Amino acid sequence: AIVAEIETQLNGQGQGALSGVHALITAGPTREPLDPVRYLSNHSSGRQGYAIAAALAAQGADVTLVSGPVALAPPRGVTLVKIETARQMLKACEDALPADVFISVAAVADWRPARAATKKLKIKATDAEAPAMELAENPDILKTLSNKRKNRPRLVIGFAAETHDVEDYARAKLARKGCDWIVANDVSGDVMGGAENEVVLITHDQSERWPRMGKEEVATRLARKIAAELGGDDGGIKLAAE
Amino acid sequence: AIVAEIETQLNGQGQGALSGVHALITAGPTREPLDPVRYLSNHSSGRQGYAIAAALAAQGADVTLVSGPVALAPPRGVTLVKIETARQMLKACEDALPADVFISVAAVADWRPARAATKKLKIKATDAEAPAMELAENPDILKTLSNKRKNRPRLVIGFAAETHDVEDYARAKLARKGCDWIVANDVSGDVMGGAENEVVLITHDQSERWPRMGKEEVATRLARKIAAELGGDDGGIKLAAE
Repeated sequence: AIVAEIETQLNGQGQGALSGVHALITAGPTREPLDPVRYLSNHSSGRQGYAIAAALAAQGADVTLVSGPVALAPPRGVTLVKIETARQMLKACEDALPADVFISVAAVADWRPARAATKKLKIKATDAEAPAMELAENPDILKTLSNKRKNRPRLVIGFAAETHDVEDYARAKLARKGCDWIVANDVSGDVMGGAENEVVLITHDQSERWPRMGKEEVATRLARKIAAELGGDDGGIKLAAE
Repeated sequence: AIVAEIETQLNGQGQGALSGVHALITAGPTREPLDPVRYLSNHSSGRQGYAIAAALAAQGADVTLVSGPVALAPPRGVTLVKIETARQMLKACEDALPADVFISVAAVADWRPARAATKKLKIKATDAEAPAMELAENPDILKTLSNKRKNRPRLVIGFAAETHDVEDYARAKLARKGCDWIVANDVSGDVMGGAENEVVLITHDQSERWPRMGKEEVATRLARKIAAELGGDDGGIKLAAE
């Protein structure tokens, strides 16, 4: 907290550009149980989301980080809420509202095993057919928060990890979810779980391709964009709690 | 290495009770891809397997640890081979033979998605039916190594994580796999990912229930049992390399 304080002082912005702002962030994967031993999940180290939480906290924001299972220590001064499944993540996010900005960085499993057994399943093939795991659709956390009538955060930002046609898929996702920005992440290379990201920031009216850079640098740059957006033209931030 | 050396000296056994023994251990989960983003996996912190690798190395064994993705540092003096899938794990184990003892601690996914897409799948439900993920059976690493005609390790030990009927399932597993011992792990409580385990050591002719204890203590006790078994009645160990 002392380091964050000094950083914000050095920024010349008193308590920080995001002082008084409540930022809600999701990070990491979700794990969707098939039984007590097996689960379906997504690759996600949580590093990008944790870096954004840290960057926002350093700018003075009050940060709630809802995180799936990762091997990272929570950033200093951030309220950490640990969850496993997408449904638990949605509930934790809704419990954390109101928020001024919501940033959905988590690699949420969009599908889960339709039935979760309480005992370890003995899976067997029959002569007739291979076994199959039926899937059920998870709640869409980004879409749900984007479309809240009450308590919709002023700025809702989604992440999209795509292996191909990155910008097209991301722009379609922006429209489909009803969020304000999409940070499109090109994961066709070797960035997954690594230290760097290559992103395109997509808003309703423009696309901004950032050079490949460290996840911390992506986080700092995004935090500045968020501060500028929430500050508006007059530089004053209107808060969810007001 | 210096610490291990001192420990083995303190044991009063010169270079250690397992000096010259090649121990092959698997640990952690495997991850079975559905596409570049999604995977099917098993809960496993890798802590028990890593503790056993450390305990055997401390007794002077030459240890090869084949590990799925975990958030642990490899124990000192152990050769670490990192893998993701069950098929990669089997290949890494076969490449590491001959070994005197094989200990299968990994939570190997017994089933994988039948098809692994190279692009991120867009999963959709139809009006007619929910989507399903077809499963294919993975190679059985414990059974394969237990039944090798050439290069079968002298002592093959499996682990069984069960939530119910622990001893019955474990004894059936011993017979089915063709291994020598099963360490049956009762995971009905809260031990998964935790610091402790509650195990039953099952051999062809007996069962030995150990009290609930730390994973390091389970590892040390198992390492001593292995040393006694490989040493035989005359205390001399016959090595795979001889």
